[in-house]
Amino acid sequence: MEKLRVHVENNPAADAAMTLAPAMFEAELARRPRLAGRLALTFNDDPDRFGSVAEDAEVVFAGRRFADASLLRRLRWVQSVSAGIEAFLPVLPPGVLLTNASGVHAEKGGEFILTAALMLNYGIPRFATDKEHRRWAPQFGPPIAGKTAVLLGVGAIGGEGARLLKLLGARTVGVSRFGGERPHLDRSLTLAEIDAALPQADFLISSLPLTAATAGLIDRRRLDLLPAGAGVVIVGRAKVFDRDALLAKLADGSLGGAVLDVFPQEPLPPDSPFWSAQNLVVTPHCSVDDHTVYLARCLTLFLDNLERYVAGEPLLNLVDRDQGY
Amino acid sequence: MEKLRVHVENNPAADAAMTLAPAMFEAELARRPRLAGRLALTFNDDPDRFGSVAEDAEVVFAGRRFADASLLRRLRWVQSVSAGIEAFLPVLPPGVLLTNASGVHAEKGGEFILTAALMLNYGIPRFATDKEHRRWAPQFGPPIAGKTAVLLGVGAIGGEGARLLKLLGARTVGVSRFGGERPHLDRSLTLAEIDAALPQADFLISSLPLTAATAGLIDRRRLDLLPAGAGVVIVGRAKVFDRDALLAKLADGSLGGAVLDVFPQEPLPPDSPFWSAQNLVVTPHCSVDDHTVYLARCLTLFLDNLERYVAGEPLLNLVDRDQGY
Repeated sequence: MEKLRVHVENNPAADAAMTLAPAMFEAELARRPRLAGRLALTFNDDPDRFGSVAEDAEVVFAGRRFADASLLRRLRWVQSVSAGIEAFLPVLPPGVLLTNASGVHAEKGGEFILTAALMLNYGIPRFATDKEHRRWAPQFGPPIAGKTAVLLGVGAIGGEGARLLKLLGARTVGVSRFGGERPHLDRSLTLAEIDAALPQADFLISSLPLTAATAGLIDRRRLDLLPAGAGVVIVGRAKVFDRDALLAKLADGSLGGAVLDVFPQEPLPPDSPFWSAQNLVVTPHCSVDDHTVYLARCLTLFLDNLERYVAGEPLLNLVDRDQGY
Repeated sequence: MEKLRVHVENNPAADAAMTLAPAMFEAELARRPRLAGRLALTFNDDPDRFGSVAEDAEVVFAGRRFADASLLRRLRWVQSVSAGIEAFLPVLPPGVLLTNASGVHAEKGGEFILTAALMLNYGIPRFATDKEHRRWAPQFGPPIAGKTAVLLGVGAIGGEGARLLKLLGARTVGVSRFGGERPHLDRSLTLAEIDAALPQADFLISSLPLTAATAGLIDRRRLDLLPAGAGVVIVGRAKVFDRDALLAKLADGSLGGAVLDVFPQEPLPPDSPFWSAQNLVVTPHCSVDDHTVYLARCLTLFLDNLERYVAGEPLLNLVDRDQGY
């Protein structure tokens, strides 16, 4: 039987903990009788050699986005190590399956949502700015119980965030494409109903992916629907928000503060206005990623999917390329 | 029957929500049949008039510390609205009872301990400094589960902090005067055993009062017992720590960061080295105080204690003046 050609494309710019080495892959493969001996593996971490090393691959484990997928004429399926895959969509030939890493971030991402909401409740972004100005200005508000968190996106990360916020007594309003009853939400609305949710938000927390339906969703008008002093958290994609409108509302003090893990351009360039924005905590796109477990979880997902693939079963985390997530 | 003379001394420098007005006091008194009609009340918020207005008081509800208690020759008992009362000890005549507000802060204080520990786990103090320097330096560590929080002080605030930390799967080690089994602690040590706890601390969290036994307890030697990268949280009294040693360990990067709500001098003077310290989040002594409920809770405690006082029963929150808390 011909072996399934599987290529692992590592990212030389990523943290070392994100490199899938042959020994790690083969050790895990040996525990999978449905796969052991049935794969022909290639590995690469030199972007210039991608086309030649991966040439015959049918399946690619993608540690980085590659723009030249057309070089791989037998390509059928790409497993991404990131949850956000919008950059892959325009470069993968039609018909190529794409699966993402959604769910891998749930535990840390949900905990960071709780952390960021608590930080906003305790005025941390403002106190960071006050420290720069040597300004002592206490605020004596209540704990988070009874405050309302509006969660844009209630997938793996947003859902775990909602669970933890409920543990501390916060009220949770979820906004998602289909709405419908979900655990840990006091109220569940559809994206079309978002304008009804925003005025209730003590904290607006986005874990939304970037799709045609979400790009620019939170524009100036919608930011103006937030109550004075509301806080903003973004752990999904930055371009869901109108960057300039968000910066303007931080600058004029109408937002209580923001905790942002993602930005329209990363790393933030030295002249980015985010660096100088007041009442803002910047975390450099790392707050939902736990590299002590990330790669191992991605590999488990990939091997589960490989078993499904060779058996002709539906893949987990299959991206709907029309919907964009 | 002669009425019990009760004086309310308000603090003109405090937040308005901390002023106990006659109407509020009398409305609550009316619901207490054991007290209604039995008290003769005076109120004052002018420090210069304290001695004359409060002159005959037997009981004082103290919204501020007053140094001239000797003016009150009939004084028997002072109820403080703060939990920390070390400044009262040298100025109250011997034999005057002192009760504090311990417990009033438990809910918010415990939640802030959780918030601060999460902030340290997510590198927030460092990212605040990185933002000032426009430095993009992600760190991809794990969630807080399995990390160890060493709690110095496991009273109302520290105990609630331990409960919340356990909810998220952290390990809790408590250090207190007597040690002994307590809820939400994986390990409970006495102050004498503190040196065994420090090397385990991912987060060192102090809610200790300032007493003869705690002043300067965390000196340079003990700070050096912390593992590299550990974080420090202080919500009790600042002088439990050697200020210069703490600042030095922030400056040399051997601490991962700190979240400090209290300082040796408050408000921080403009030239304080805390303002310019790196990897430090300053919250201006407000993170355990919830003014939406604080005064009401203090008043409830005071009325409960007044009922006990007139009945000759032991008071709640009675300070052991020899132990200093």
